[in-house]
Amino acid sequence: MFGFDGRSLKCLLVRRDGLDHKLPGSLIFDNEDIPSAAYRVLEEMTGLGDIYLKELSVFSDPLRVGKEDLEWINSFYGVNTRRVVTVAYYALVKLDRRILSHTQEKGALWKEVESITSLAMDHRQILHKALAMLIRDMTNSPIAFELLPKKFTIRELTDLYKAILGVEIDRRNFRKKIKSCAYILPTGEKEKGVPHKPAAYFVFDKNRYKKEEKKTRKLNFINWNE
Amino acid sequence: MFGFDGRSLKCLLVRRDGLDHKLPGSLIFDNEDIPSAAYRVLEEMTGLGDIYLKELSVFSDPLRVGKEDLEWINSFYGVNTRRVVTVAYYALVKLDRRILSHTQEKGALWKEVESITSLAMDHRQILHKALAMLIRDMTNSPIAFELLPKKFTIRELTDLYKAILGVEIDRRNFRKKIKSCAYILPTGEKEKGVPHKPAAYFVFDKNRYKKEEKKTRKLNFINWNE
Repeated sequence: MFGFDGRSLKCLLVRRDGLDHKLPGSLIFDNEDIPSAAYRVLEEMTGLGDIYLKELSVFSDPLRVGKEDLEWINSFYGVNTRRVVTVAYYALVKLDRRILSHTQEKGALWKEVESITSLAMDHRQILHKALAMLIRDMTNSPIAFELLPKKFTIRELTDLYKAILGVEIDRRNFRKKIKSCAYILPTGEKEKGVPHKPAAYFVFDKNRYKKEEKKTRKLNFINWNE
Repeated sequence: MFGFDGRSLKCLLVRRDGLDHKLPGSLIFDNEDIPSAAYRVLEEMTGLGDIYLKELSVFSDPLRVGKEDLEWINSFYGVNTRRVVTVAYYALVKLDRRILSHTQEKGALWKEVESITSLAMDHRQILHKALAMLIRDMTNSPIAFELLPKKFTIRELTDLYKAILGVEIDRRNFRKKIKSCAYILPTGEKEKGVPHKPAAYFVFDKNRYKKEEKKTRKLNFINWNE
């Protein structure tokens, strides 16, 4: 679970009793499929059901869970398994007060991705792969808006790209692009009570985006990088 | 496994003894991870080890394998399981004589994707999802070249796009784009012994593509559809 608070990209971690931190997860039930299990964990942790979720990859190395971790899993979940295959998803969350208080109640921790140095089992490898996919997806599709409030300023959008892609953005050029973009629309409202010149609020119009995408997708296949 | 023979997109099917057709697959061994199992099946079916393979999705509906199919799986593989979760991959193959004779020996069948009306279990759903991902990936990345011989003509490339994306292509415009493309290079050779004006052969330069991609990716994130 990735979250953005306006400043940096964060990742939700849970602590194993007296042990190290891990990514949130669960075994699946007999009567549920894997996406349902992922949404179940998401809702448990955030209180929200309609969160952006994407399948990342399957982690299935026979040696990925060592003897002690396997014992922990068997005792924690009350099962008796010799092998654990993990299907990883990434989720995107805008960090607001409601979510922060919910995750805190659950004893979970939003930690800056950059400062995460160790995790249980192969969870650092999972996080690494999720981050790589997030970066790639952010360059190809408008998922950035999943990490922002509904109404956002151009500064907030550039700060998000800067925080995740690690690139400096020419604000004037960027502003021009946004203004010519058919699916990022001004709301007519401006920031209030800020110590600088109030910035205009924009919204992302998903339906317009889909329409534009349909129009252009078929023509774009040879312009991969132009 | 998708294959292209210069005319249409085909999919490799295997027949269950006296029953319907299914996609090639296997249970995994205790000591192998899932990608290794996928490569194992690929090599078994094609004789080749270096084939383009991409993880598609996990299929885990508790009801996806009915009672009879479960009995077939348990008897075929000599196991005793109550549930089967499938990790699906798609692979891309250029259909040449060597592969065709190998798959024929294995009793497998290259069938035109468009003419596949029914498959075992939920394999039609898997094929449908694989096709959707193939089309999306073909618009965003240069995987088309995995389906073509090393040296190809512009006609072969347009025929491939036409067959898979189902779009008519303005050949003159397309030719211009190819010629200005930094990673599709003329070999200097031409077709021989053809009943029409011999066409020039091109190659795809993967390393150049990667270099170009690095240069442009960071700048492209707001131009999703321009």
